[in-house]
Amino acid sequence: MNATRRAVVLVSGGLDSTTALAVARRDGLECYALTVDYGQRHAAELAAAQRVAAALGAAEHRCLRLDLAQFGGSALTDQSIDVPTVRETGIPVTYVPARNTVLLSLALAWAEVLGAEAVYIGVNAVDYSGYPDCRPEFIEAFGRMARLATKAGVEGQPFEVRTPLIALSKADIIRLGAALGVDYGMTVSCYQPDEGGRACGVCDACHFRAEGFRQSGVADPTRYAVRG
Amino acid sequence: MNATRRAVVLVSGGLDSTTALAVARRDGLECYALTVDYGQRHAAELAAAQRVAAALGAAEHRCLRLDLAQFGGSALTDQSIDVPTVRETGIPVTYVPARNTVLLSLALAWAEVLGAEAVYIGVNAVDYSGYPDCRPEFIEAFGRMARLATKAGVEGQPFEVRTPLIALSKADIIRLGAALGVDYGMTVSCYQPDEGGRACGVCDACHFRAEGFRQSGVADPTRYAVRG
Repeated sequence: MNATRRAVVLVSGGLDSTTALAVARRDGLECYALTVDYGQRHAAELAAAQRVAAALGAAEHRCLRLDLAQFGGSALTDQSIDVPTVRETGIPVTYVPARNTVLLSLALAWAEVLGAEAVYIGVNAVDYSGYPDCRPEFIEAFGRMARLATKAGVEGQPFEVRTPLIALSKADIIRLGAALGVDYGMTVSCYQPDEGGRACGVCDACHFRAEGFRQSGVADPTRYAVRG
Repeated sequence: MNATRRAVVLVSGGLDSTTALAVARRDGLECYALTVDYGQRHAAELAAAQRVAAALGAAEHRCLRLDLAQFGGSALTDQSIDVPTVRETGIPVTYVPARNTVLLSLALAWAEVLGAEAVYIGVNAVDYSGYPDCRPEFIEAFGRMARLATKAGVEGQPFEVRTPLIALSKADIIRLGAALGVDYGMTVSCYQPDEGGRACGVCDACHFRAEGFRQSGVADPTRYAVRG
């Protein structure tokens, strides 16, 4: 057992995961930031993840490449499916198959090696855009499975998946991060930023982000190509 | 829904996963073979996986590269830890952190895109060598989590993790595969085969394999460098 309390934090470079990292730091944990490059359409998010990990004092940052585009099935990894600009109902085409299951599994692998007590993930059940793997019952089931999967679990070491944002609105998340000193200008939420790094202003992610800032009363540092 | 019943089968090129693929084919399923190259020490296993998928009539075979060696912690992916030649007690150093969780998560992602009804994995609780993620309670917990994680699960489509070998001895597995026409000469079990493709004869995997053939009464086609 390490005297230092450790956590693996999934960091995408977006607003939510950045706030989750800030919370893990506030909780007094030595943080290991993990970014998974699963074949998203752009690299701006990955550069943002590096900036965020450094700015918020992560002990280490690793980026793991994983070609989920091989499986297809999502507008975020499959070039033949357009990112929608009209709000959808039900489960959107930007859903990446089993995404959070894959991300949490990789985080669990690193957590086991580090002897970390938790994985932090910035999922959110309020503005979750219809993704099944953002619901509390999924997170609970993953934690239960993880404690049965690992050497640490078998030896009785506690482990849990922490979702500090799960019950918060986007505005609440922004207020929480702002209170913890997060500079959201470093983060990228847009599914399809332009070459100058500007957010499109019309995708689902831009919509939730802009609306969140409006409701939070925190000034929005995002540069949008089009105002949604 | 597809009229064709589909399964994703995790195929490593070893004896167990080859038998699992033979069982999935016997069960009448169109099989999608998935090999994950997670930074093992040799490529012989990957070549074996390709031979096996083709020989047993998989509809497709994909190989996904994933650099788990970045996390360290196992003799199978970490060059600084020696593969042991003396039998250990407890959880061995060849244990890869959260390995089956990661493998099953990736299989789940593909299964969701394919509309597959199951993932087959050749885990075994009898000769499982002390790995926590080979136990039935882990598999059960993963299946429960997976049904909560996916679009298919949310929409009520059945999905399960099938482990046809979980209660079989190595000898039983070999007899089952032989009855289904598997040529085990195509498979590789050894953790450290030599450049000519011969098994070392002294590692854990060689030990279980050789002993299994001895007890099964099936002729062992394996070429060993050293007879264990």
